[in-house]
Amino acid sequence: MPDNVRIAIDAMGGDIGPAMTVAGCAMVAEQKNDVEFLLFGDETLVREQVAKYLGLSGVATCIHTDVAIQMGDKPSQALRTGRRVSSMWQAIDAVKQGKADVAVSAGNTGALMAMAKVILRTLASVERPALAAIWPNARGESIVLDLGASIGADAQHLVDLAVMGSAMARIVLGRDTPTVGLLNVGVEEIKGIEEVKAAARILRGMPDKHMKYHGFVEGDDLGAGTVDVVVTEGFTGNIALKTAEGTAKQIAQYLRTEMNRSIMSRIGYLFARSAFNALRKKMDPRRSNGAVFLGLDGIVIKSHGGTDGLGFSGAVDIGYEMARNGLQAKIRETLVESHEIMLTFDQPAAATER
Amino acid sequence: MPDNVRIAIDAMGGDIGPAMTVAGCAMVAEQKNDVEFLLFGDETLVREQVAKYLGLSGVATCIHTDVAIQMGDKPSQALRTGRRVSSMWQAIDAVKQGKADVAVSAGNTGALMAMAKVILRTLASVERPALAAIWPNARGESIVLDLGASIGADAQHLVDLAVMGSAMARIVLGRDTPTVGLLNVGVEEIKGIEEVKAAARILRGMPDKHMKYHGFVEGDDLGAGTVDVVVTEGFTGNIALKTAEGTAKQIAQYLRTEMNRSIMSRIGYLFARSAFNALRKKMDPRRSNGAVFLGLDGIVIKSHGGTDGLGFSGAVDIGYEMARNGLQAKIRETLVESHEIMLTFDQPAAATER
Repeated sequence: MPDNVRIAIDAMGGDIGPAMTVAGCAMVAEQKNDVEFLLFGDETLVREQVAKYLGLSGVATCIHTDVAIQMGDKPSQALRTGRRVSSMWQAIDAVKQGKADVAVSAGNTGALMAMAKVILRTLASVERPALAAIWPNARGESIVLDLGASIGADAQHLVDLAVMGSAMARIVLGRDTPTVGLLNVGVEEIKGIEEVKAAARILRGMPDKHMKYHGFVEGDDLGAGTVDVVVTEGFTGNIALKTAEGTAKQIAQYLRTEMNRSIMSRIGYLFARSAFNALRKKMDPRRSNGAVFLGLDGIVIKSHGGTDGLGFSGAVDIGYEMARNGLQAKIRETLVESHEIMLTFDQPAAATER
Repeated sequence: MPDNVRIAIDAMGGDIGPAMTVAGCAMVAEQKNDVEFLLFGDETLVREQVAKYLGLSGVATCIHTDVAIQMGDKPSQALRTGRRVSSMWQAIDAVKQGKADVAVSAGNTGALMAMAKVILRTLASVERPALAAIWPNARGESIVLDLGASIGADAQHLVDLAVMGSAMARIVLGRDTPTVGLLNVGVEEIKGIEEVKAAARILRGMPDKHMKYHGFVEGDDLGAGTVDVVVTEGFTGNIALKTAEGTAKQIAQYLRTEMNRSIMSRIGYLFARSAFNALRKKMDPRRSNGAVFLGLDGIVIKSHGGTDGLGFSGAVDIGYEMARNGLQAKIRETLVESHEIMLTFDQPAAATER
């Protein structure tokens, strides 16, 4: 990687577009002096935004694209109308061409995933990419994957998820050997699907060099922060993520309602305002914005579409960290190791696709 | 049903046993004058507790059993050591024998499920039982199932879950035609597993007589309360439930930490104490304690093992409501209807077991 981290931005992505994406880049540029941006989008709109931020001068290059993928576009439709000509395509393609180290988009997830797969393809030994996010928990943060990049997983794919998630955790959490748990259910008799059990057998056999297998974890271990990396297939992972988001919203609403119910509690709120602000900050989804596509031959970051500049800057930050700290190399070294072990492993259930 | 609702209690179940279960029954007896208890357990221990509550005199009968199923017992082990002789077995068997209208246990979930299946068997057309709970949400409450009674579900089982869950919702929520949603993921391209899509096709074809099919819902719809009944298979349901519980705990811990951080916020807490108490009450897991096994030829309620008398009384209350309001009859009438429709339905994917 050259001295600067070069970040390709799908400037048209998200509900708001350039006003939001460029603001996010400007925030990152203020904090880092080793970053460059390639901004793909409608040149007039993007330049207008870039002009607002002194910090972007000299570090942002605008590249005009004619097409912006819409949030409602189906992936197949996005590939048809946006191939080569869209801001999303070009941002990803810049990574493929070696012109950027990472691409960030707040656009439509399905379209982003489809384009990323077509352009970058998966790493040699990885069958399907995964979507991983940083999950705030009671003890700090953990990495959770797959959040919905694909549905179902055989044992080998679950092991790949563990490998890729722990590579990301080494960067995000700064641990040499992050702990890894397989998400499962707690009722003894039915302890999990066959694929999960088979993955556990393989993971138990792996050396603790780049990660340490902890065992099964349950849904409440996500909030408790029992392990550094929680592995599950995409259907369950997506539902767990959205269930947690929904629960947080629900409790925030309860809290608001109750604090507004009486004069006494409103006075209490004023006294405790700093505590409520701290809580709000802790629960702010913008703080953990930015999911990472893992398993592709290049780094792509997905930001929430409905976020603002601050939220988008979080996603750009994650992209910066992943590129700066060599995510891809870390994934590759552990993948090689795990596949060598899998070859020696008797895995009767590993082939059963769910 | 005779005039009184007759409730069979596994008095030895739960982490504490009789001191907790009998206390719970006493609370219910205080509020209802049409209830009787059959208390199965160690006679000395149970009688000692019953003697503490005036309200139980005349409405509680103690039946001695020699064996108590342990929380750590595997289901197979529980069936071996507890068949016929355990408090859990006898409580369920009382329902089978027509001596009780419902059984309630805070014992080991796997053992309870295994025994309930052996003793009561499933309803004629239902393949596997399900575990359903009342889920507090921003708009009130909903019914969510399956929470882990079985893993995986074909389209027909998902439809059965919808039918059984809506029968429960008619009682708990007091709605004639509860709305039903199928839990799914939101990414367009991969919109769900084949079985879920097939179940959606069947549910769309059903008349709105006893339930109204809403469509797919996502994880955050659980907290938002978008529909009255949320249907998913047991693996995902179990993980969603525990993820929500874990998130609630995590936020409560954040809140405690922040409110204790400064003198100002502690003063604020004092002013707003009634608001915090109301919030605590809303988030109290004891308020929604008591999951219902659905699809068996008899009603069995599972209470959390680690709850107290108040929590257990919630589970007993749910059992009372289910029996009093004819849960089984409501399930049967809707099942018949749905199976007639399924027979007329072309369902290519319905047979694909996950």
